[in-house]
Amino acid sequence: MLAENLKRLRTARGWSQEYLAHEAGLHRTFVAHVERGMRNISLDNIERLADALDVTPGSLLTPS
Amino acid sequence: MLAENLKRLRTARGWSQEYLAHEAGLHRTFVAHVERGMRNISLDNIERLADALDVTPGSLLTPS
Repeated sequence: MLAENLKRLRTARGWSQEYLAHEAGLHRTFVAHVERGMRNISLDNIERLADALDVTPGSLLTPS
Repeated sequence: MLAENLKRLRTARGWSQEYLAHEAGLHRTFVAHVERGMRNISLDNIERLADALDVTPGSLLTPS
């Protein structure tokens, strides 16, 4: 869920993983791992990614 | 957000923190801390709590 939403929202904005990571104050490899479902991400980081993408945290965990 | 939603959903079911923790396979003090916003909870545990309450993970992070 989160992985798919993150990739969809990021690519819809034409952003690289690096750009999203920079906007969210995270490391590029961390974003890459989240998009591959390889991370048990924390709420704080879900909120950081949501803020960077200007969406709600809940929407990142909701089927699109 | 999560703290308020968790408490509201739990009490609406007449559940104690201990009962919710048991249903979610978590420790009671962990649930107590999440309800006081004292935990940077992981996605896995958000999903456990959502499953126990029979709600979607996204709804736990969405204003009610």
